Amino acid sequence: MPEPQLTTPRTELRTLLLDVGDDGVAVLTVNRPDRANSQTVTMFHEFGEAALALRDSGARALVVRGAGERAFCTGFDLAEIDVLREMGPLEFLAFQELAANGIAALRALPFPVIAAVHGPAAGGGMSLALAADIRLAAPSAKFALSFVKVGLSIGELGTSWTLSRLVGPGIAAELAFTGRTVEAAEAARIGLVNRVVDDPVAEAHAVAAAVARNSPGGVRLSKRALQAGMEVGSYAAAMELENRGQALLTRAADFPEALAAFREGRPPVWTGR
Amino acid sequence: MPEPQLTTPRTELRTLLLDVGDDGVAVLTVNRPDRANSQTVTMFHEFGEAALALRDSGARALVVRGAGERAFCTGFDLAEIDVLREMGPLEFLAFQELAANGIAALRALPFPVIAAVHGPAAGGGMSLALAADIRLAAPSAKFALSFVKVGLSIGELGTSWTLSRLVGPGIAAELAFTGRTVEAAEAARIGLVNRVVDDPVAEAHAVAAAVARNSPGGVRLSKRALQAGMEVGSYAAAMELENRGQALLTRAADFPEALAAFREGRPPVWTGR
Amino acid sequence: MPEPQLTTPRTELRTLLLDVGDDGVAVLTVNRPDRANSQTVTMFHEFGEAALALRDSGARALVVRGAGERAFCTGFDLAEIDVLREMGPLEFLAFQELAANGIAALRALPFPVIAAVHGPAAGGGMSLALAADIRLAAPSAKFALSFVKVGLSIGELGTSWTLSRLVGPGIAAELAFTGRTVEAAEAARIGLVNRVVDDPVAEAHAVAAAVARNSPGGVRLSKRALQAGMEVGSYAAAMELENRGQALLTRAADFPEALAAFREGRPPVWTGR
Repeated sequence: MPEPQLTTPRTELRTLLLDVGDDGVAVLTVNRPDRANSQTVTMFHEFGEAALALRDSGARALVVRGAGERAFCTGFDLAEIDVLREMGPLEFLAFQELAANGIAALRALPFPVIAAVHGPAAGGGMSLALAADIRLAAPSAKFALSFVKVGLSIGELGTSWTLSRLVGPGIAAELAFTGRTVEAAEAARIGLVNRVVDDPVAEAHAVAAAVARNSPGGVRLSKRALQAGMEVGSYAAAMELENRGQALLTRAADFPEALAAFREGRPPVWTGR
Repeated sequence: MPEPQLTTPRTELRTLLLDVGDDGVAVLTVNRPDRANSQTVTMFHEFGEAALALRDSGARALVVRGAGERAFCTGFDLAEIDVLREMGPLEFLAFQELAANGIAALRALPFPVIAAVHGPAAGGGMSLALAADIRLAAPSAKFALSFVKVGLSIGELGTSWTLSRLVGPGIAAELAFTGRTVEAAEAARIGLVNRVVDDPVAEAHAVAAAVARNSPGGVRLSKRALQAGMEVGSYAAAMELENRGQALLTRAADFPEALAAFREGRPPVWTGR
Repeated sequence: MPEPQLTTPRTELRTLLLDVGDDGVAVLTVNRPDRANSQTVTMFHEFGEAALALRDSGARALVVRGAGERAFCTGFDLAEIDVLREMGPLEFLAFQELAANGIAALRALPFPVIAAVHGPAAGGGMSLALAADIRLAAPSAKFALSFVKVGLSIGELGTSWTLSRLVGPGIAAELAFTGRTVEAAEAARIGLVNRVVDDPVAEAHAVAAAVARNSPGGVRLSKRALQAGMEVGSYAAAMELENRGQALLTRAADFPEALAAFREGRPPVWTGR
């Protein structure tokens, strides 16, 4: 049975670059380097479009990065922020929902999403990094929730859900209320990033390669189980969900293939079916 | 538009001191230094009264501290504990609810609450520190959940909710079941406090000053979003709540003021309206 | 009033050893050292039997360990895995539920469960360690979620619930998707274990002894409050549960005994009634 075909989706994107490599690793690049990779209304549309295109790309992992040397993503472009101000209340809510849905769609991809952060990840750029499953930081990485500096709250793009779960409610509160900058080393110490590495894009590809050696179905249901495990109300209900997932995976093609490969002393050939 | 008037509320308190400074920073002092700042029935009444008075004080942040050199707060005064023993079951439950409500009311204040801990924070004193959004510890700070040493459980004043979320369930279990003392350095390492500083009251004022440079509405809704984000059942529901909060803040006075100030290269003048 | 009688339950176990010491510390040993303490269908049956037997043993704490020098527990025995493959879908689901229930029953014991880990804790062996309240690791301890290497997911035996809460969702995702090995020092740094010690079994007994100096009822309701506190939907509901628990404990024999002992300068004699 052949591996699924890998194709870079034919999506016209103006603020992002999307590429799916032969190794099954997709790369989504925030591509406004002349504006410090700041975000615009168009970019939030395009996060959703990119996520939709990626779902059926056959990719095994997604790396999210910023273009150029300067920044990962610096949040909403203040030069364009009057667009938001001029919207009516429900018009703004519709935009806010579209932006949130785009971030949520990236987070919900059926394979790991790895943020490779260099330079500033600020405001909505930090929210983008927080929506990834795994965060790898360059020594130059800096994180700041700058929303409170412009009259807004950190309740944006899922940040209020994710932040406390990553760094605990005490650190989350301090970062949220002061908007202070967290340097890379502190980010690793408090659990905001998985670790600091010299080249986070290369390390993200290495993590993606390690993922790709494992069963696609196992990884996919592991991701769903972890995300559901944070939402399900009880340990017992989490187990119910787990039990059905595991029963399903023992019926899929990769389980007997893994056992056969183990017996024959060869790497398994996964199909993810 | 003027800044809201700051007033120290006219509340008669016997076991606490309450002061609201010109800088918008309120200070609540546990004030039984001759009894190691231990807690009494009266003090639990007064936590609720102080919280009520603070809601409309115009304060931008609250610092909670202990009076004197010796302790932050050492939990219920064992010399007064017969009062609890002599209560009937439902009478005790009513007292317990009153105590819990007082702590919950401090936690729910619409601005950051920062505990500045020196010396012991034990039993209900540790619970008081855990109810703050942010904890800063002196090198002398010590934390202990001494409830199990007197026949009671750590299920008290919100501790069973907060502790696992701050330090993870494994460390929480050990501290809860053994009642062992955690020194300041370990407290920082396990996430029980934000950090250890020589003068936690001064540092709490510095954090409060950093908060006060940000939008009151943005900070307030950030706090609500973080607290709700720990309670809301799903990431999607957290986003719904976020979206409405952000839409509301773009209608408030501080958002256009922030953009104008940014353009004019001056600090914003917040009104919080 | 005498201390409850301590008895090692008369349960016939083939893959586990169960012993309750005079000091009230029970020890459950995964006992297939010739097969690296790997798990079998029988062992999952016996986890449930052991838990049932332990409930009424009078034990104050349980230590879970692996027999021999080599490993804590290395997950399902691949030599027996065809048993799983040959089950029909609902037959497999029934087995999966039985296994999950056995682990859940150990986790739900009314006293602390302490995993003392040396060597590998892999797959279902890591899940077993995660079901304990407290984890102590030897320098030789190694943890790996190897499920994705054989086509399965980490949604197994409660792991999807526990892992993110212990190490945060970012680290959890990396361990789940890559299946990479975590050495003892990293395990302590990320919160997967409480700490690394030369002799985790001895240290587990020391922690158990510290627990046994405290009120049995207080420890029991502390455990229930912590576990419920992770499941209850809101801080306010957690407080309601706490308030009733504390009211109950003030009616139990150990509370007045603790106060009398304190006054008389002697250690309390607990009955747990």
